[in-house]
Amino acid sequence: MEIAKKAEIIAVGSELLLGQIANTNAQFISKELAEIGVNVFYHTAVGDNPERLKQVIRTAEERSDLIIFSGGLGPTKDDLTKETIANTMGRPLVLNDEAFRSIEEYFAKTKRTMSPNNRKQALVIEGSDVLANHFGMAPGMLAEHGSRLYMLLPGPPSELRPMFENEAKPLLLKKLGSNEKIVSTVLRFFGIGESQLEADLEDIIDAQTNPTIAPLAADGEVTLRLTAKHADEKETERLLKETEASILERVGEFFYGYDDTSLVKELSKACRQNGITISSAESFTGGLFSEWVTDLSGASQLFAGGVVCYSDSVKQHVLGVKAETLADSGAVSKECARELAAGVRKLTGSDIGISFTGVAGPDPQEGHAPGRVFIGISAEGKEEVHEFNFAGSRTGIRKRAAKYGCHLILKMLDQK
Amino acid sequence: MEIAKKAEIIAVGSELLLGQIANTNAQFISKELAEIGVNVFYHTAVGDNPERLKQVIRTAEERSDLIIFSGGLGPTKDDLTKETIANTMGRPLVLNDEAFRSIEEYFAKTKRTMSPNNRKQALVIEGSDVLANHFGMAPGMLAEHGSRLYMLLPGPPSELRPMFENEAKPLLLKKLGSNEKIVSTVLRFFGIGESQLEADLEDIIDAQTNPTIAPLAADGEVTLRLTAKHADEKETERLLKETEASILERVGEFFYGYDDTSLVKELSKACRQNGITISSAESFTGGLFSEWVTDLSGASQLFAGGVVCYSDSVKQHVLGVKAETLADSGAVSKECARELAAGVRKLTGSDIGISFTGVAGPDPQEGHAPGRVFIGISAEGKEEVHEFNFAGSRTGIRKRAAKYGCHLILKMLDQK
Repeated sequence: MEIAKKAEIIAVGSELLLGQIANTNAQFISKELAEIGVNVFYHTAVGDNPERLKQVIRTAEERSDLIIFSGGLGPTKDDLTKETIANTMGRPLVLNDEAFRSIEEYFAKTKRTMSPNNRKQALVIEGSDVLANHFGMAPGMLAEHGSRLYMLLPGPPSELRPMFENEAKPLLLKKLGSNEKIVSTVLRFFGIGESQLEADLEDIIDAQTNPTIAPLAADGEVTLRLTAKHADEKETERLLKETEASILERVGEFFYGYDDTSLVKELSKACRQNGITISSAESFTGGLFSEWVTDLSGASQLFAGGVVCYSDSVKQHVLGVKAETLADSGAVSKECARELAAGVRKLTGSDIGISFTGVAGPDPQEGHAPGRVFIGISAEGKEEVHEFNFAGSRTGIRKRAAKYGCHLILKMLDQK
Repeated sequence: MEIAKKAEIIAVGSELLLGQIANTNAQFISKELAEIGVNVFYHTAVGDNPERLKQVIRTAEERSDLIIFSGGLGPTKDDLTKETIANTMGRPLVLNDEAFRSIEEYFAKTKRTMSPNNRKQALVIEGSDVLANHFGMAPGMLAEHGSRLYMLLPGPPSELRPMFENEAKPLLLKKLGSNEKIVSTVLRFFGIGESQLEADLEDIIDAQTNPTIAPLAADGEVTLRLTAKHADEKETERLLKETEASILERVGEFFYGYDDTSLVKELSKACRQNGITISSAESFTGGLFSEWVTDLSGASQLFAGGVVCYSDSVKQHVLGVKAETLADSGAVSKECARELAAGVRKLTGSDIGISFTGVAGPDPQEGHAPGRVFIGISAEGKEEVHEFNFAGSRTGIRKRAAKYGCHLILKMLDQK
C-alpha cells in the first residue's frame, strides 16, 4: 500500500485547550514517525466536541493520508473520538470480544465492579485492526478507509507509548511496505550564533537533500539535525558521515558533541577520562557552574570543591585575592579573575581552577555594564583569562558564562 | 471591539513536527487565555513551509477570530511566519525603527557583527502594534485585519512568555474591551502534599464557584489558584480575600506567599527586611542553594558567600569540620551538618550559616540510602539540624533539600 507520505496527528481533549497539559503525545509520535520515514506535516488539538472534531477530521482528510488520533477513547460520555470517526466513515462500532475480555480481567484483577459504560471501551470501528492495550482498558485501532489510514490511540502517555511502539508501529510499517531506513544525528555547537552558522553553511544546507539539515537554536547553543534516508542502513551512515565532515571542515572549532549531550556532560567525561580534578571560584555566577557539574552522578571523581565568593571579603580572605588588586583593578577585572582561579586551585588542591567574575545585572557595577564578564583558568604551568560582553537577562548572562566555563576547560584539555 | 470569542494557536516550526520539542507555548498561551475568559478551540502546529502555513491560516480564518502564532520570527530563511501572514493579508512588511535599534544595540553590546539577515527581524506587518522583545531580538506584533486579531510571538519560551504577559495580554484585554474583570491570585504552600491539602479543603473547594479554586502540585510545592469574575473589580477583590481567609484558617501554617513568588524570593525579602546576611556550606546540593539565592538581584546585600564542600578535605580544611567527626559519624551526619553550618558562618562572618549534607544518589553513601539529608542552621546563640528522607531523582532530592533550606531559615526568622 503506497500511502502515508503525509501524516497528521490529532489530539482530542479539552484539557489541552485549557493548558492543563502539554501535547507530549504529538511529540512522541512525531519522533517515532520521523524515524521510520513518515513525514508529519500537521499537529492539531481539538476539544471534546463532536462538531468541531468532525470539522477537524474533514480538514485532515483533505491534506493527509495517515491520520493519527490520541485521546477520547475512555468510558465517559465526553470520550467520543471513535464514535465521531466511525460516524464520518459511515461505519458501525462493534464489540471486540478480546478487548471486552481484557476489560473484564482488568476489573477482576483490581477487584472493582465493572460499570456499564466500561463496555463502551470494548467497541471498535468495524473492520479495523485492534491494537491491544496492556497498560489500560481502551484498545487502540488502525482502520483503512478510502485511500487513508486512521489510527486511534488512548490519551494517557503511559498507555499510548507502549501501544505505539509494540502494536501500532510494526503494523504501520507492514501497511506502508516501506524498506527505507531513516537515521538521524544531531551536531551540537557552542560559541557561534545561529545566523552566523547558517551563513557559513548556507550553500551546503541549500544543496543538501539527503541527508537533510535542520538548524535549531536554544539556550545560546545551535544544533544541526542531519537526517538521511536509504534502503541500505550502511549507506545512510555513509551519507551522514560525509555531510558531517563537510560541515565540520568549516565550523568544526565550534562543534562539541552529538545528540543529547551537553557542555557540562562533555566536561565531566573529559575530566574523568584524563583523571583531572577541577574547582571553581564563582562570584556573579553564584554557584551555577558547580551546581551543573555536581548535578551529574560521579561528580565526586572530578569536582574538588568550590567557593561562592560573592563578597570581596571572601575573595580576599578565603581565596587570597590581593587587597591591592581589589583596590586598584576592582573585583570585576582580569587580575581578580586570575587570582581567584589560582586561589581556588590552591585551596582545593585541584588540577584546574576556574573563576567567574563579572556583572550579572540589572545594575552596573564598578563602572562595568551588565554582561561584562571575566573567566579565569589556572592549571599547572598555565593561566588564562577570557573577557566577554554578554547580552540578556541576569539569569541568561550567568548561564552563558557557566557554559563558556565548560567550553574553555574543554578547549584547554583538547590542547593537552 | 467585540471579538475573540474563538481563539486558535498556531505554532510554526519543523522542530515540532520532528518531535524535537513539545508545543509548550500552546499550553502556556492556552492557560493565560483561559484566565482572561478567552476560549481556545484549536491548536495547530505546522512546519516552516509557506504553502502549508498559508493553508493553515486560511483554515484558521474560517473558524477563529483570534489567531495567535508562535515561532518563525527569527533571522534565518526558514523563518517565514510574518512574511506569510502579511502576504495573506495583502499588507507589506515595514522596518520598525525601534526594533531595529534594539537589534543594533544587541550586536554592539555583544561586540558581534550584525549579519544582513538580522535586519529581517526588525520588519513588522504594516499597521500592527509592535510587542517589544526584552529577552531576544525578534519583536512580536498584534495586527487587526478584517474582523480578526492576529498575534505574532517569538518561538523561544524565554522570549514568548514575558512578551505575552507584559506586552500582549494587556493590549489584548484592551482590544477585547471585556467589561467583566477577572482577577486571580495564587496561594503558595510548602511542606504539605497536594492530596493532604485537598483533603483539608475538600468542602471549601467543592462549594466554591466564584472564585473558583484550582489546586496544582509542582516541584514539591502546592499552589491554589483562586479566580474571581465580576464587573466591579472591588467586588472580585472582596470575593478573593474572603475565600483566602477561610483557606488560610485551615492550612495557613504551610502558606508562604502569593502568585509568582518562590521560597527563595521570600527568603531574600525577609533577609533584606531584617538586615540579615546568610552563607551556605553545600555538600550534595553542590551550590544549588547559593545559585538560587544569588540568581535574584540584590543578592549582594544578603549573601556573604558559600563553600561547595564536595570533598571531605574541603569540609575539614576550609570549613573546620573535625577529623573525628568525619571519622566517627561520617560526612552524612547530624554532627557534620552542625559543624559545617557553624564553620561557614564563622568563615564568612554572616549572621546565619546553613549547611546541606546528604546522599543525592543514585548510589548509597556511607551506608545511607539516596534521599538521606541533614540540613544545619547556625545563628547567634542558636543551632538547628533537621533530618530528612527524600524520595526521587538525584536532581529532585537536591531541589527538595534547597527548598527546605529556604523554608527552615524563613521559619527561624519568623520566630524572631
